[in-house]
Amino acid sequence: MTQEQTIKDMMQAMGKAAKAASETLAMATTEQKNTVLIAAAEFLRTDKDKILSANATDMENAKARGLAAAMLDRLLLDEDRIESIALSLETIAELPDPVGDVMAKWDRPNGLNISRVRVPLGVIGIIYESRPNVTADAGALCLKSGNATILRGGSESVLSNRAIHACLVRGLTEAGLPTDAIQLIPTQDRAAVGELLALVGYVDIIVPRGGKSLIERVQNDSRVPVMAHLDGICHVYVNEQADLAKAVAITVNAKMRRTGICGAAETLLIDERILQSHLPAIVAALKEAGCELRGDAAVRDVDNSIVPATDADWDTEYLEAILSIKAVTGVAAAIAHIAAHGSHHTDCIITENLEAAAKFLTEVDSAIVVHNASTQYADGGEFGMGAEIGISTGKMHARGPVGLEQLTSYKYQVRGNGQIRP
Amino acid sequence: MTQEQTIKDMMQAMGKAAKAASETLAMATTEQKNTVLIAAAEFLRTDKDKILSANATDMENAKARGLAAAMLDRLLLDEDRIESIALSLETIAELPDPVGDVMAKWDRPNGLNISRVRVPLGVIGIIYESRPNVTADAGALCLKSGNATILRGGSESVLSNRAIHACLVRGLTEAGLPTDAIQLIPTQDRAAVGELLALVGYVDIIVPRGGKSLIERVQNDSRVPVMAHLDGICHVYVNEQADLAKAVAITVNAKMRRTGICGAAETLLIDERILQSHLPAIVAALKEAGCELRGDAAVRDVDNSIVPATDADWDTEYLEAILSIKAVTGVAAAIAHIAAHGSHHTDCIITENLEAAAKFLTEVDSAIVVHNASTQYADGGEFGMGAEIGISTGKMHARGPVGLEQLTSYKYQVRGNGQIRP
Repeated sequence: MTQEQTIKDMMQAMGKAAKAASETLAMATTEQKNTVLIAAAEFLRTDKDKILSANATDMENAKARGLAAAMLDRLLLDEDRIESIALSLETIAELPDPVGDVMAKWDRPNGLNISRVRVPLGVIGIIYESRPNVTADAGALCLKSGNATILRGGSESVLSNRAIHACLVRGLTEAGLPTDAIQLIPTQDRAAVGELLALVGYVDIIVPRGGKSLIERVQNDSRVPVMAHLDGICHVYVNEQADLAKAVAITVNAKMRRTGICGAAETLLIDERILQSHLPAIVAALKEAGCELRGDAAVRDVDNSIVPATDADWDTEYLEAILSIKAVTGVAAAIAHIAAHGSHHTDCIITENLEAAAKFLTEVDSAIVVHNASTQYADGGEFGMGAEIGISTGKMHARGPVGLEQLTSYKYQVRGNGQIRP
Repeated sequence: MTQEQTIKDMMQAMGKAAKAASETLAMATTEQKNTVLIAAAEFLRTDKDKILSANATDMENAKARGLAAAMLDRLLLDEDRIESIALSLETIAELPDPVGDVMAKWDRPNGLNISRVRVPLGVIGIIYESRPNVTADAGALCLKSGNATILRGGSESVLSNRAIHACLVRGLTEAGLPTDAIQLIPTQDRAAVGELLALVGYVDIIVPRGGKSLIERVQNDSRVPVMAHLDGICHVYVNEQADLAKAVAITVNAKMRRTGICGAAETLLIDERILQSHLPAIVAALKEAGCELRGDAAVRDVDNSIVPATDADWDTEYLEAILSIKAVTGVAAAIAHIAAHGSHHTDCIITENLEAAAKFLTEVDSAIVVHNASTQYADGGEFGMGAEIGISTGKMHARGPVGLEQLTSYKYQVRGNGQIRP
């Protein structure tokens, strides 16, 4: 048997096992699911040394392979990080169980009573890169929403992932649930990803988490529906009637609080009628925070210390302390720029003019549109969802933060007393 | 230029035009959209003779090609049917506009106000077979939900579809909306369908309506997400504690009211403990209604006039006056049979035992589960949704009847007063 065929068979077997486990999981009680999470958190704590030692080997190998410092930091586990993974499992245990939730209920004139009730999606495939905490977070969110999971972590974190995954599996055993409910693909062969993306009938949805090239590959190759965002080219638009203090504070926070997250701002649009009054203070605050600025001609007319922006800047997700700045005339021009260059993720208007704000919130076609607050609130936790598995910019199924509810589907329960259709 | 390239270019152009129109449509007022529908209904009435003459040519061609009588009946238009198409447009105009609907709204402790607001999906591709009324119904439902449509009808109804489509286009003009909002693919070349299914980035969702082979082809070939159901293998399970009168009435209605619809029952499961008490009356009523019966050994022990069922019967959607009957022991066995042979569409339990009913409604993994009522209620209109474009058995996005709400996505509008994320 070829290596290819072996991997195909293995992935088919994992898919089939996940599907079978998902049927048990769909009927599991909230208590059973919480038992898994609370037990797994404890196992993470008691197995701390094993996990740290696995991670130390991953770190050595990664350093030997010359991984960048930022990647090494993502990969690193220490006692605090393990504790925070354990706490995150306990937090998910405390979230309300979405399964069985009655979303709507109504009576028909013929006496039929109809309820729309949440049910799990089934089997969720998670493909992720270096952060080992995703193993626990993603597995736990899928489990709590009644879904089986097939996890595929990055090759650099393989031993750390296995050690964390072992704790989840022990949690499943503790609760009497099938251990196939959370599976970790045991090989780092890339062919396994291709096979996972083709498991139509076994896997219901794929959630990729990582850099743009990973997401792009998954979106292009998957035969299973994908929930993801490719880019986060987020805009802050400072309207003519913006409050200066809010404009300064929000722009700096949207760009600089954390530059590497998808909700970080990449482009500042500023109304040309307030270039003189508003731009200098915003620029000064950004520079003080350590941000590199690239501007168009009108912006550079006000401050020629700003580097000239090229066309490519408007389409770039820097994920760094760099911000492009462009002058626009009015809210319609800002909306048009965002339609042409944005990524339908999160965009913000700063204004005291409620009409302009309403126009922006209605017409900008993004998952999240914000008035007078930072784009960095684009996060399931900040939205009150408890936790998220990612943010989706697609319009099918879930849009925006994907939390427990977004990992469910629904069914209709119709209750009658003998009705037949005329 | 090859014919293939020409069709590819044409479909790309249609996709691009639909996408542009969808942006205007997303911002259209309810009044504008209703104007289209009401005007189109009037044009259908005033253009009645043109439409009937187009349909007469379609009918002649279809007869010459030897189309089956059932297909010819689906294709046929007469004055009554045109009037009912016009009325259906007016009904859709009266339905509430889902766009802009605030689905949920909450405040965060930091003062942020978050609303989840319905928005259109974008562009919807509809691929359908012989019924010309789908041209109007599907175009109208997509329009009312703010979506642009690309329609691809069956080759047998090409002239009828064009005549009906012309009325919709005149309605769009009347309302000042872009005529590209409802496009009909002008060629019957099959390559156009392949190109439509590949219009990722322009088309957001494909809804196929027709026979199993059409749906199967679309589901297999589409690069765009598909919302559909492949089969409707619906079950009626008569539990040990079923009321006999309900069992008889519901079974006959579920099978025989209309045999050709997806919510029609195909298999009767009956508890073996009530074979003697319940089966004879059910069989007598079905036979009187003209239904052919195929049973397993236990069923034939009670009534040996019933034809023996083969293994294939349990997996067959007859869409005819044929019903397979199987004896099962208890609700768990019924659920297991449905899991093995059902199509996740609509399944029903008849019982006076509320515990058995609750178990069935929870554990049967179908879009619609019914207690003591006919499976033929599986319909958006009967659910109170006003109208439906189809029924989905997938779990992503919409499940069950797909009405106006299910043709939408949502966005989050976040309102602050200067919040920055700590």
